[in-house]
Amino acid sequence: MPSKPIDDQRGYIMPIGGGEDKFASPTVLQKFIDLSGGNDAIIAVIPTASKLEDTGDIYVDIFEKMGVKEAHNLKIESRLDATTNKDYQDTLSKCTGIFMTGGNQLLLSTTLGGTPIAKLIRRLNAKGVSVAGTSAGAAFISGFMIAGGQGGLMPRCNMVNLAPGLGLTNKLLVDQHFSQRDRLGRLLAALSYNPYMVGVGIDEDTGVLLNSSNVIEVIGSGMVTVIDFSHLKHSSLHNARNNAPISLVDIRMHMLLEGQKFDLKTSLVEF
Amino acid sequence: MPSKPIDDQRGYIMPIGGGEDKFASPTVLQKFIDLSGGNDAIIAVIPTASKLEDTGDIYVDIFEKMGVKEAHNLKIESRLDATTNKDYQDTLSKCTGIFMTGGNQLLLSTTLGGTPIAKLIRRLNAKGVSVAGTSAGAAFISGFMIAGGQGGLMPRCNMVNLAPGLGLTNKLLVDQHFSQRDRLGRLLAALSYNPYMVGVGIDEDTGVLLNSSNVIEVIGSGMVTVIDFSHLKHSSLHNARNNAPISLVDIRMHMLLEGQKFDLKTSLVEF
Repeated sequence: MPSKPIDDQRGYIMPIGGGEDKFASPTVLQKFIDLSGGNDAIIAVIPTASKLEDTGDIYVDIFEKMGVKEAHNLKIESRLDATTNKDYQDTLSKCTGIFMTGGNQLLLSTTLGGTPIAKLIRRLNAKGVSVAGTSAGAAFISGFMIAGGQGGLMPRCNMVNLAPGLGLTNKLLVDQHFSQRDRLGRLLAALSYNPYMVGVGIDEDTGVLLNSSNVIEVIGSGMVTVIDFSHLKHSSLHNARNNAPISLVDIRMHMLLEGQKFDLKTSLVEF
Repeated sequence: MPSKPIDDQRGYIMPIGGGEDKFASPTVLQKFIDLSGGNDAIIAVIPTASKLEDTGDIYVDIFEKMGVKEAHNLKIESRLDATTNKDYQDTLSKCTGIFMTGGNQLLLSTTLGGTPIAKLIRRLNAKGVSVAGTSAGAAFISGFMIAGGQGGLMPRCNMVNLAPGLGLTNKLLVDQHFSQRDRLGRLLAALSYNPYMVGVGIDEDTGVLLNSSNVIEVIGSGMVTVIDFSHLKHSSLHNARNNAPISLVDIRMHMLLEGQKFDLKTSLVEF
């Protein structure tokens, strides 16, 4: 692990839009492995969002077959696990990459929120460990997460619920399965509460790579819709009745494909 | 009818997103009547887009009950009708408002395109007659119309078909049933061919009023999504394979509600 000052060495943060290819052309997972050390990578899989028994083991198997040095299933199922199980903390402490699976982001936030595991993930990321999450795992990564909401193009009052997330960054608001589940409206509605965040709507089999310079890059086969509210002139959210449409003036939007970058500091796209 | 120079007296152009309220709270149709002379209005209904027998009569009945002076059903069903039936041309010539119903915009373009009726509508609008169209009738109004396409959020190559429209304006590209049928992707894809037009995605029970100063105003209960490509920095359309997503950098977007205005000359919103 590098020994540069913390601000300069934060590990990569990589929300993935769900449905990433795991076998034929696993571009997104391969990128996560590369950023975690490649053949030297030690990966911790956190399947807490999933209610399925074998989610963690499946990812461990995938990562091992893709050639990492070690992969471990951290089957944290309760706040007690997250608070008292030292084995989980020890395994996390030696890993070079952390991967949170899909499922329900509320299982992540209610199980891990405020526990030593959540604090350890933040500390490890700040010291250089890569953290990826897919689907629910992606939603949970930021300071605010979309806990749930309705589909559709039109932003409407009360169509989306926000909740505190893991807090690896506070600059992004992530939505996933974005084109596939038609989520522009709920991302716009979520951003309209306080336009300081940049919205990233991530399609399936697609990831967003946030580096320590706060530049994001698109990885994978789908699209990332970047919503920039930094020039927003008007939001009618405060006036809108329940379920009524929200007027938004001067949304800046970019639809980005693999390799394209957006700088969160300057709001400029590199294409 | 006023006798000012043509550029200064063009009649209102009013594409409507379909599904306008016709009975309980007919805000959109009332606005069209008001702009056509209110109680003195003489309305020509053109039901050519519709395959239903009674579409024209239904609108005539609605307009009469709303208190116009006269309403006429111009049941133009063929190019022969549109070319040789002098009654239709005589009725059109005395009207103060023209209303094109919904149905299939290709029935409008293939039946009216290049006929004396199409030319007469353009001439009448240039002299001050209001022209509205709902759904297919809205699509047909501009110089280019969306003939068909696929739903969804993601703009993709070849997801939309453009065709020449009636040509009352060449500044707008209209899409209708916009939120309801999830049409952002196809409107973005349509605009990406040549970003000079402004896209207006009009929801149901909602209209866009274009005045002779090229300012548009939202009427009705839904939302109008204005897509401004005047600052577009990049479109990958020329590189995209069939059905592949199109990258678009620096889309400006406004989600507008009743009474809000967008100036096509300055690209500014009045809210």
